[in-house]
Amino acid sequence: MSIDFRTEPASYRHWKLKFDGEVAELILDVDETGGLFDGYELKLNSYDLGVDIELYDATQRLRFEHPEVKVVVLRSGKDKVFCAGANIRMLAGAAHAHKVNFCKFTNETRNGMEDASGFSDQKYICAVTGACAGGGYELALATDYIILTDDGASSVALPEVPLLAVLPGTGGLTRVTDKRKVRRDHADVFCTIEEGIKGRRALDWRLVDEIVPNSRFAEAVRTRAADFAAQSTRPSDAEGVALTPLERHLDDDRMRYSSLEVELDRAARVATLVIKGPQSPAPATPEAAAAEGAGFWPLRLAREIDDAILHLRFNELDLGLIAFKSEGDAEAVLAYDRLLTEQADDWFIREVSLFWKRLMKRVDVTSRSLVALIEPGSCFAGFLAEFVFASDRGYMLSGQFEGDNRPAAEIHLSAANFGRLPMSNDLSRLATRFLGEPQSLEAAAAVRGEALDAERAEELGLVTFAYDDIDWEDEVRIFLEERASFSPDAMVGMEANLRFAGPETMETKIFGRLTAWQNWIFQRPNAVGEEGALRHYGTGKKGRFDFDRV
Amino acid sequence: MSIDFRTEPASYRHWKLKFDGEVAELILDVDETGGLFDGYELKLNSYDLGVDIELYDATQRLRFEHPEVKVVVLRSGKDKVFCAGANIRMLAGAAHAHKVNFCKFTNETRNGMEDASGFSDQKYICAVTGACAGGGYELALATDYIILTDDGASSVALPEVPLLAVLPGTGGLTRVTDKRKVRRDHADVFCTIEEGIKGRRALDWRLVDEIVPNSRFAEAVRTRAADFAAQSTRPSDAEGVALTPLERHLDDDRMRYSSLEVELDRAARVATLVIKGPQSPAPATPEAAAAEGAGFWPLRLAREIDDAILHLRFNELDLGLIAFKSEGDAEAVLAYDRLLTEQADDWFIREVSLFWKRLMKRVDVTSRSLVALIEPGSCFAGFLAEFVFASDRGYMLSGQFEGDNRPAAEIHLSAANFGRLPMSNDLSRLATRFLGEPQSLEAAAAVRGEALDAERAEELGLVTFAYDDIDWEDEVRIFLEERASFSPDAMVGMEANLRFAGPETMETKIFGRLTAWQNWIFQRPNAVGEEGALRHYGTGKKGRFDFDRV
Repeated sequence: MSIDFRTEPASYRHWKLKFDGEVAELILDVDETGGLFDGYELKLNSYDLGVDIELYDATQRLRFEHPEVKVVVLRSGKDKVFCAGANIRMLAGAAHAHKVNFCKFTNETRNGMEDASGFSDQKYICAVTGACAGGGYELALATDYIILTDDGASSVALPEVPLLAVLPGTGGLTRVTDKRKVRRDHADVFCTIEEGIKGRRALDWRLVDEIVPNSRFAEAVRTRAADFAAQSTRPSDAEGVALTPLERHLDDDRMRYSSLEVELDRAARVATLVIKGPQSPAPATPEAAAAEGAGFWPLRLAREIDDAILHLRFNELDLGLIAFKSEGDAEAVLAYDRLLTEQADDWFIREVSLFWKRLMKRVDVTSRSLVALIEPGSCFAGFLAEFVFASDRGYMLSGQFEGDNRPAAEIHLSAANFGRLPMSNDLSRLATRFLGEPQSLEAAAAVRGEALDAERAEELGLVTFAYDDIDWEDEVRIFLEERASFSPDAMVGMEANLRFAGPETMETKIFGRLTAWQNWIFQRPNAVGEEGALRHYGTGKKGRFDFDRV
Repeated sequence: MSIDFRTEPASYRHWKLKFDGEVAELILDVDETGGLFDGYELKLNSYDLGVDIELYDATQRLRFEHPEVKVVVLRSGKDKVFCAGANIRMLAGAAHAHKVNFCKFTNETRNGMEDASGFSDQKYICAVTGACAGGGYELALATDYIILTDDGASSVALPEVPLLAVLPGTGGLTRVTDKRKVRRDHADVFCTIEEGIKGRRALDWRLVDEIVPNSRFAEAVRTRAADFAAQSTRPSDAEGVALTPLERHLDDDRMRYSSLEVELDRAARVATLVIKGPQSPAPATPEAAAAEGAGFWPLRLAREIDDAILHLRFNELDLGLIAFKSEGDAEAVLAYDRLLTEQADDWFIREVSLFWKRLMKRVDVTSRSLVALIEPGSCFAGFLAEFVFASDRGYMLSGQFEGDNRPAAEIHLSAANFGRLPMSNDLSRLATRFLGEPQSLEAAAAVRGEALDAERAEELGLVTFAYDDIDWEDEVRIFLEERASFSPDAMVGMEANLRFAGPETMETKIFGRLTAWQNWIFQRPNAVGEEGALRHYGTGKKGRFDFDRV
């Protein structure tokens, strides 16, 4: 079964969106029978990837379609439970690669909620009634403000460790220590109590921001929402941009979108993303851009690449390499790029840029080897040049191919490459690249706006290798073949380390430290073995452990 | 077989130390037949834990016994090879827990070399002749300056990924990106080239600091050593303190040292470290302290705890909990603590404090649950109080035990708890603990020098729980029993995340990100399975991989 990430509110089975001016409600009301796979029921508002695909879609629409929404209240549609977290039977039955990719996507969506809060001024309030456990509490942790009803029963909990012998791996441990800055001994107690913590202690330990008796709960949530809304800079009078259905055509060896083609070479284990430059000139104003709606080229392209990357991650596990190519007119790309820079204060333009930021972060944490192939006729300019710097290596052709009259490849840098699209370490990709040579960062900044041919790009350190057409084919082929021959696990680990030099943030800690430990645990018999806790969950039997410490 | 970490130069089989005034030579000349276990030969200057135990011993002696040594030149005693890294057959045959603990100890020793450089002004120069590969290059990376002979053959390499399908996990990837700040695409190329990189390119890519033709190599090393020595503040005229043999008595359920007793409760899976306060008053001056030599109580105690922790890590895998207790006179401890603070500029006092810093960091990354049990008659004062803050939880008894006249427990804070012994995140344990409540850090600082009973300690947030003697026994027992019942793997992952809130450093990245990914890979069939690369090494067969990406 191919997993499809495209959806829309009318098709949601698990979430409801309610709009009332500045405040929207995002209501989790999981359809027990609506699991993405067979073999489990989504009881107690637990979730699987299908639930999270809808959540991702909702968060994107809240930003693009609803500029007027300043506060999103996240709550449960069930009476006695907020959310029981990721469905355990689903996890127990899932292949390792699915578990890991599911957690990554789930993490990205939660990071995206924090991005909405931090950069779009769209705040999230989590109104917790009932049990809020595991992934449910991790979802709450991604919001700005957690209100817990003080009814003597409702609680927050991270029961993964005592119950399942795995970690709260969707940001849970990291957000407890680094976002909510819970004292480590309190965190230790909290993470080992199956039943969780309620009322006053939850507040004292900073696990929630407010506790309110049931009788005043709805009012308190409304008040907080109004407070947050009053402080938001989001426009009240702007008109949203509808995210119309994404068109794509899938063949066995090719995916076609309007501005993207993906070639799937299964024998070589390579997926090549060919990014197409704009077919029409950049609109002159943000209003004209918004009038183009989801057809606005940078938005359309971002959605298409986003969809393709997710598709490859989940549905094409054995394509270990992603090659980025581009085709088009660099000047036309740069006209769009200038609009994004110069009109950065416009809400829609801002959302498009922030989407590109998130998209490139998704590329960074995609555990496939990434290479940019910069050939004649390409348009790696401005924000599109980020694919070169997001890649593990960049190969650039010097001059033209024999018998081919497309113009020699050039790279064009712009403001987009120097801070508009930071990595999760909060540095630009070029700043990370040149951590050890600040003079190279300055030299790159000095040539913004210039057309850089292969020799200059290599000299400036923007690409790894430049070859003329005599060597090109062999060098690229050898690289791709060699790369495809390496252990994919070693590649995963190597790339997760080499891509993130420099400072760490909560996001890098989630994808580096927390995820890596969780993946390790997801391989350990104590969790996933025949006698492991994850397998035994729900059977009444406890896991049987090998007690050796590693 | 019980692994013994105690050694001395006269017993070394693999290293030689040569002294010549300010410059010492540390020469790796591995005895092929001197492996710690059977089943492999330490060819090509490859190493196992036994080689690294000697290295750790040598680095400790260089600091304590040789204040006059300002520069250590690390070189090979073999003609054509510097070091081939960790022995592959040893790794392939070792249990997962041994591999992981071996890597951790190896990392700690390399971090210790950087600590000597950064804080004792004892610099390391690595003089590379011959192949310097894998762990060999990782050792070089831990030094301050790498000189490579430019003979057309000598090279540096990290061949783990292409050759063995594992990572350069002893700091290699992290030091390449974050210490030497090698450009990520260069790092990518470097880490996938089996044969490594030599000469000019090694220099251009910042993999080494200098390349010198063979004919001038010895002279260049001498010159660099003299340059570094000239800048060092280490005293030329001080007399070293001999690290005399460490006495200990091991029974089946008890380890006895002069100031430490370790009770091994195998049924409960708990090791209790009972730290004994000083038996004699603190010397009045640094000179008097140095005259006590290795008997100087803080030095003696640090060596004993260090040995005990390493022993537990390697030889007692199923003791999942370490409980810290102490017995003694807090005022007597504080007298030593004051000497360490007030005479911090003295070279010997400085070395003792720096050893305590490294020891506490070793405690932090020890993957056992840690608990401090603060009982009547204890002396958790000043630097000894760090064991409370290094623990996952602290339990403190309020008042006295019935029928026991030892004085009620108190905690005493001093300057040692506010920066002298930073964690690997560069914050004090209290600053990390109170990351979310700076007012609590200030409140703790304000009560330095006071005797804090259980109620005040709990109120100040210094301990997790305070109980009177009616509840104490049950509460502690329940905690220990519950803890011992959890999956040890989940504990490892949880503790590795909860202990390190806040900023990240190269060290935290090594133990967090790099180590976690390496441990994951060490579980993957592509590396360690029957058809995995690690198992096939040396057989002429390539590893057969499952190419699914995770």
